[in-house]
Amino acid sequence: MSAQTNNTTLTIGLVGFGVVGKGLYDVLKETPSLKTKIKKICIKDRNKKRPIDQSLFTDDFSALLRDDEINVIAELIDDADAAFKIVKASLQKGKAVVSANKKMIAAHFDELIFLQKKYNVPFLYEASCCAGIPIIRNLEEYYDNDLLLQVKGIINGSTNFILSRIEEENISFDKALKIAQDAGFAESDPSLDTEGYDAANKLCILAAHAFGLVVKPADILFTGITNISSPDIAYAREKNCSIRLTACAKKSSTGGLSLFVLPQLVPAGSEFQQVKNEFNCLETESCFADRHFFKGKGAGAFPTAAAVLSDLSALRYGYRYEYKKLEQQTDVHLSADYLLDVIISAESIDDIDIYSFEYIESFQREKDFTRLKGAISADKLKENDWWKQPGVSLLLAPEPFATADAKRYADSLGAELIKAGSFVDTVDA
Amino acid sequence: MSAQTNNTTLTIGLVGFGVVGKGLYDVLKETPSLKTKIKKICIKDRNKKRPIDQSLFTDDFSALLRDDEINVIAELIDDADAAFKIVKASLQKGKAVVSANKKMIAAHFDELIFLQKKYNVPFLYEASCCAGIPIIRNLEEYYDNDLLLQVKGIINGSTNFILSRIEEENISFDKALKIAQDAGFAESDPSLDTEGYDAANKLCILAAHAFGLVVKPADILFTGITNISSPDIAYAREKNCSIRLTACAKKSSTGGLSLFVLPQLVPAGSEFQQVKNEFNCLETESCFADRHFFKGKGAGAFPTAAAVLSDLSALRYGYRYEYKKLEQQTDVHLSADYLLDVIISAESIDDIDIYSFEYIESFQREKDFTRLKGAISADKLKENDWWKQPGVSLLLAPEPFATADAKRYADSLGAELIKAGSFVDTVDA
Repeated sequence: MSAQTNNTTLTIGLVGFGVVGKGLYDVLKETPSLKTKIKKICIKDRNKKRPIDQSLFTDDFSALLRDDEINVIAELIDDADAAFKIVKASLQKGKAVVSANKKMIAAHFDELIFLQKKYNVPFLYEASCCAGIPIIRNLEEYYDNDLLLQVKGIINGSTNFILSRIEEENISFDKALKIAQDAGFAESDPSLDTEGYDAANKLCILAAHAFGLVVKPADILFTGITNISSPDIAYAREKNCSIRLTACAKKSSTGGLSLFVLPQLVPAGSEFQQVKNEFNCLETESCFADRHFFKGKGAGAFPTAAAVLSDLSALRYGYRYEYKKLEQQTDVHLSADYLLDVIISAESIDDIDIYSFEYIESFQREKDFTRLKGAISADKLKENDWWKQPGVSLLLAPEPFATADAKRYADSLGAELIKAGSFVDTVDA
Repeated sequence: MSAQTNNTTLTIGLVGFGVVGKGLYDVLKETPSLKTKIKKICIKDRNKKRPIDQSLFTDDFSALLRDDEINVIAELIDDADAAFKIVKASLQKGKAVVSANKKMIAAHFDELIFLQKKYNVPFLYEASCCAGIPIIRNLEEYYDNDLLLQVKGIINGSTNFILSRIEEENISFDKALKIAQDAGFAESDPSLDTEGYDAANKLCILAAHAFGLVVKPADILFTGITNISSPDIAYAREKNCSIRLTACAKKSSTGGLSLFVLPQLVPAGSEFQQVKNEFNCLETESCFADRHFFKGKGAGAFPTAAAVLSDLSALRYGYRYEYKKLEQQTDVHLSADYLLDVIISAESIDDIDIYSFEYIESFQREKDFTRLKGAISADKLKENDWWKQPGVSLLLAPEPFATADAKRYADSLGAELIKAGSFVDTVDA
């Protein structure tokens, strides 16, 4: 919320005319009440044939900056480094900016917050998380008090699409990826999505607005879905579960914030399991209000453009993020001091660092694979990458946080005997 | 969004100390960062023993009005008429008001909007619809453009709790109602909930914020769940469906707004079917963004208090509803000119006004009941109440809006023959 209530007319300089940029152009045509016009579109190749008036296009971004009538820059390009330069230059020129570029935002979050304050100009990016689902603004405005405990969700549409295809069609990761690419839900270089970087970027954005903590993606415990293999799918099925790449931010009573993006088993019929294909979801958990669940399309040109549109609409009323929790926050800090209940599958037991486990709840060894269920600290997972190596996969249990109960169960199973040094001996015996 | 950005300290005059009022008191104790204090609590009976400092209580509302330090009135009483007087007097005194009283708001909507403008003071009521789920503010701020097509949801927790119990425990309406009352999810006089008034009140509020149209509850086509009987439950089960009391606001391309609250068949596994017990949900449908689904607890002291808290928090930043769509709206108007696909069950065929149907898709007659599936205009349902009489029940089909396809199907079934005058003859033959 902000000082400005007048109904500003927006004159947009659009940067990028890919699927989202073109989508925004189409959406704006359908919303005359917004009194918004695109004055110029900056693209790389001016000579490429496009379906609209060629005179709108320029390859010179400084022409947009110099144009005083343009009061909003809609930055919708892929290249995060170039995007940051565009956003920075625009804010410095006092132009409001709307963007969907989560990689750019997560990489330069501190500076982007600083620039907004210094130049007293709004920078909105609802489209960067879960496309059109209203997430950031709700975290910023509605869940703006100390009662929010946890935010978790499925926040990458590409990987969710791929996992749905693997599960429903019983096909390999590579085949499913190809289908996702053909359907427009995965990039030609899909690693940003499939290796979890994209979800980690988004989780950084969510953590700032939900809990007032700005961290770098590299500080987060995360992986993607590239190592999910058919034994994992079979195991999930056996447990009447599906696999989803889940992002989670959970605040402890002492202010420690657990942040991770990991593949997780979700029970059949659960809300998360019902989130399929390119859909995304987010669940908030608060004292008193309990759980709120939000679901919608998390990818695609139009859902993303619709979120950009909502930001534009908000700019007309002078809306800006106030980062209230960043201002207030005192005791919130990144923490890796928590235990996760995981299922590790590996081709060979030698691929598993069993000594890093806090306790082991069950263990299964077949001719060509080993499966271990147990609790391991987030710290140990962050320190090492044996669990990200080819042939090794990690699945979070449906209830990811290991509890004292689970430990007691493990102990009562005699897991003590197979802990640490004595473990391998017992198995080999 | 509003002109005020300073971080106002709130001094609250609380009116009512029932479950929600007490809930708010508890919630505020847990949110010190809000810098909010309750200075006085106005109640009917000052002598009733209460677990907190007795000196906070007064039975004289004017004492709250006169106290210049009190800048917010939290109105949390049941009595809608008394509540309106309190809200009106508070706004006239320039005090911001927060309320959860949907009946009062729906009954005096025009005047409440007028008073806010006249006295330039905010009146917030997020808790009036779906308790803590952020609905009104999202409709007001996020879905604030011409792209919103439909809003539908399960917006009454009591009836949903009762329907869940009936279905899961195979018990009668009366037994299920008793369980709901014991669990605190239904009032001692439950008719406001069970006969659909409460949902109709909420739908009026949603319609204003979603589509900019203020209507009275009496203008809406609605009923409750009191006539749902075991043949309906059996029929739903046979069709692999559940029954939910659904509220819907749908805008046609020409601006006609369909508003109704009716029991509906929802398919097993669907999002609406997964909304059980006291949970509520809302689904928005927009061009481009497609469907967004919101779910959370829709009843109970703490979920409601949490929504009141969020309004208080927003007041600190000068937030107020701007009723943008009311200002803009030109062509939106209430319409009953649409066809609904319904299933009518009745003890006797004489209880069904078959002549009011546009077409009849199927017809079943047993010894002690008759069931008819067909399309009827909302107009005809609003004009008459044969379908609300004891012994008659109406269920909306999973796809409630009758389409040309359904008509063709009905026609191809030979339903023409049993239409209107020839119908009874055919059946009786």
